[in-house]
Amino acid sequence: MSLDEAKARRQEGKGVTPRSEDYARWYTDVVLKAELADYSPVKGSMVIRPYGLALWENMRAVLDQRFRETGHQNVYFPMLIPMSFLRKEAEHVEGFAPELAVVTHAGGEELEEPLVLRPTSETIINATVAKWINSYRDLPLLLNQWCNVVRWELRPRLFLRTTEFLWQEGHTAHATEAQALEEALRMLEVYRQFAEQYAALPVLTGRKSASERFAGAVETFAVEAMMGDRRALQVGTSHFLGQNFARPFDIKFQDESNELRYVWQTSWGVSTRLVGAVVMAHGDDQGLILPPRLAPIQIVIVPIWRKDAEKVQVLEAARALKAEVEPALRVHLDERDTVTPGFKFNEWEMKGVPLRVEIGPRDLEKGQITISRRDAKVREAIARPQAARELSTRLEELQRALYERALKFREENTRRIDGYQEFCAFIEEPGGFVWAHWCGEADCEARIKEDTKATIRVIPLQPEAEAGACVRCAGASQHPVLFARAY
Amino acid sequence: MSLDEAKARRQEGKGVTPRSEDYARWYTDVVLKAELADYSPVKGSMVIRPYGLALWENMRAVLDQRFRETGHQNVYFPMLIPMSFLRKEAEHVEGFAPELAVVTHAGGEELEEPLVLRPTSETIINATVAKWINSYRDLPLLLNQWCNVVRWELRPRLFLRTTEFLWQEGHTAHATEAQALEEALRMLEVYRQFAEQYAALPVLTGRKSASERFAGAVETFAVEAMMGDRRALQVGTSHFLGQNFARPFDIKFQDESNELRYVWQTSWGVSTRLVGAVVMAHGDDQGLILPPRLAPIQIVIVPIWRKDAEKVQVLEAARALKAEVEPALRVHLDERDTVTPGFKFNEWEMKGVPLRVEIGPRDLEKGQITISRRDAKVREAIARPQAARELSTRLEELQRALYERALKFREENTRRIDGYQEFCAFIEEPGGFVWAHWCGEADCEARIKEDTKATIRVIPLQPEAEAGACVRCAGASQHPVLFARAY
Repeated sequence: MSLDEAKARRQEGKGVTPRSEDYARWYTDVVLKAELADYSPVKGSMVIRPYGLALWENMRAVLDQRFRETGHQNVYFPMLIPMSFLRKEAEHVEGFAPELAVVTHAGGEELEEPLVLRPTSETIINATVAKWINSYRDLPLLLNQWCNVVRWELRPRLFLRTTEFLWQEGHTAHATEAQALEEALRMLEVYRQFAEQYAALPVLTGRKSASERFAGAVETFAVEAMMGDRRALQVGTSHFLGQNFARPFDIKFQDESNELRYVWQTSWGVSTRLVGAVVMAHGDDQGLILPPRLAPIQIVIVPIWRKDAEKVQVLEAARALKAEVEPALRVHLDERDTVTPGFKFNEWEMKGVPLRVEIGPRDLEKGQITISRRDAKVREAIARPQAARELSTRLEELQRALYERALKFREENTRRIDGYQEFCAFIEEPGGFVWAHWCGEADCEARIKEDTKATIRVIPLQPEAEAGACVRCAGASQHPVLFARAY
Repeated sequence: MSLDEAKARRQEGKGVTPRSEDYARWYTDVVLKAELADYSPVKGSMVIRPYGLALWENMRAVLDQRFRETGHQNVYFPMLIPMSFLRKEAEHVEGFAPELAVVTHAGGEELEEPLVLRPTSETIINATVAKWINSYRDLPLLLNQWCNVVRWELRPRLFLRTTEFLWQEGHTAHATEAQALEEALRMLEVYRQFAEQYAALPVLTGRKSASERFAGAVETFAVEAMMGDRRALQVGTSHFLGQNFARPFDIKFQDESNELRYVWQTSWGVSTRLVGAVVMAHGDDQGLILPPRLAPIQIVIVPIWRKDAEKVQVLEAARALKAEVEPALRVHLDERDTVTPGFKFNEWEMKGVPLRVEIGPRDLEKGQITISRRDAKVREAIARPQAARELSTRLEELQRALYERALKFREENTRRIDGYQEFCAFIEEPGGFVWAHWCGEADCEARIKEDTKATIRVIPLQPEAEAGACVRCAGASQHPVLFARAY
């Protein structure tokens, strides 16, 4: 879609395409009309608008704090990486080569060696930390980087797949295999908690099968959530890299008995994709519904007046409420007099603001305010003196309710299936998550994907042993794994 | 210098090259040994290490808050810009063409149109906001972006000139020329206050001459500081763009009388160069001296013990002090027992931590702590109960003292000169800032630069009228302008 089409769609009335009619178009409509992002003139890339960036910045602030609490330090490495660095790890370059953007000319001259725009930074970081790590005292080395990355996408979608996106990438080095594995799982847990507690996304965590592994990893762990169309979205990954990068980049340390050993490493990341996850997991046909803990605006106050005399009083009361609530909560007072209250209601619903407060002459008379929750069609009056406390309580309730609703939706759309015909039929219609036995063979996994477009989303970390037969080939299996169609 | 040389230099003992011996080498030594940054394997780029990035993040947090207070919203535009966009503004492309890095291949194919890595984002932003701006109600549009930019540098220097750097770029659009001009000067003032109040940099502000103007601007305003070698460093710029971009990008709005008009624009930015400015303005032969308001660590506590029995007590006291001070101040307790207190003193001096606290058995006996200020060779004992308050006070004193010292240094190294011979001699040795008359001719300015390497740093915004004769050609001049050699 071009910029002009996007603009036209944004302006063609207030509504969005209903989810039941065309989910993909509903998603694009919401992202554009809620002004989270816009198409850019450069194919495959997007503009993150202030409202969308504020949401990402809130996510970033929470995660950054968690990374610090777990001992990580922020760092910034160059974006341009010599092609030869990527070639040092065979699987890595093979995995990323098709997605690379390459700088061949700079400063008016052709470069001796082409430089690629980082698709991820393992290679450039490891080439450098090899110089920083000498002794076991330098370990663990716990780094994180917030930056942009570029992966050429032929079928871009706003926030979900764009040629350039924002993310964080953690990169760590450890003295032992056990410590690196522990780190990879620790960060997986940080992501799980963030998804559940902040984004209100119920998630499943586990290992990836070999075919879905990060190029260069020994083991990839992932956090998976169900979207509103019952498909899976991977919202974060954590990789145990073993010594796959340590060897080619020669990252050695002197251990306590003065022996030289290779380090053990991890990397892990989440991206602006998380914004797409929040849109798809919680939104409805009126637009976004944002989890209060991440919402750029948690409460919007819409003053309502007819006569000028009312306006003065109402605005005064609205400003007083804002001032009272503001230190603790993110609140916006919509004072515009160029649009009607009804227009404002629609606009803030589209933008998913969790709570709306109306203050009109009748509210003033009765010493109350009127609250509407974005996730439920209920209006209630609250006595003005209790307003600040009640608003906080309602936000916490809404945060929990979003999570519970998403969890219920996932549970209702998850099946345990043993027969292949039933498996294929369910994936096709209505679709959802399926726990099914798998023999462990890549071939079989590939055939299932061919037949159904479903992939293995996670293999449980600590499965309850339950012997069974592979859903497709009837080969032996020790426990079920999670299948779904995914973004 | 290669990565290996950099490492070798970092490790060759604790000291740095004295400033008096080789200022440029002193600078590089300090940046590397204080672990602000490291060379990267990619020529011209650098790795910003955790300590350096923490300093930049502190700068970013303060500035971001100021931008919000002045009504700006953060946004993120794509890094890759079609070459044709740059060509739309003739001066702009002419100015930036020699510094561009160009992506010619992506996704395994040659691109139809080469994409450049943003050297600055006027073109991509204006191509998009043209779609967002329809009516006077959409104005002013006040955007800011934190991102990386790429400008190919043939003679890179850590933080001061690197092919990739981090910065913020503000981009605004207004209904009238006066409002845009006011905005450009408002942000210049935000930069001035930040430089003075946070970075402890006394600065001069003013207009640039045409030859030093941003490519595409009608007027460039700048903030200039004096470094420790008496040269000038531009630490921030704010541009009044007039309608130079509005016309080629067709950014029009309907005014209140329904007429279509072009917007008036500004752009403004500061970069990681500010880190270099702080190093050079305040550092000494022992290393960095960081202004407390920006220092990643404001106070380091070094516990001192000989016997194990002492260690327990001393550490307990040190931890108690840290806990007491920590909510308000950024404090680090150096508990390492693998290095001596003397080693720690040197290390934290190199890293420019404003205050050092020693706690030893004698301090415990006397109910005191011992404080050393990084900017003065004075140790003093403070009664323990007053510690928290006194530490805060000392930090504020140090912040002021750094500013005052830098101001005194600048004043001592600034001259008012009327004769060209004296001008040339002073610029050559000892060097410094010179207020001198200038006829206003670009030719004359160019000749002065040829003769002395000095350029016009700023032309005062509101000069006191004082007729005189150009220092070189004796042509008529209404007031002096500021000359200096600059980074």
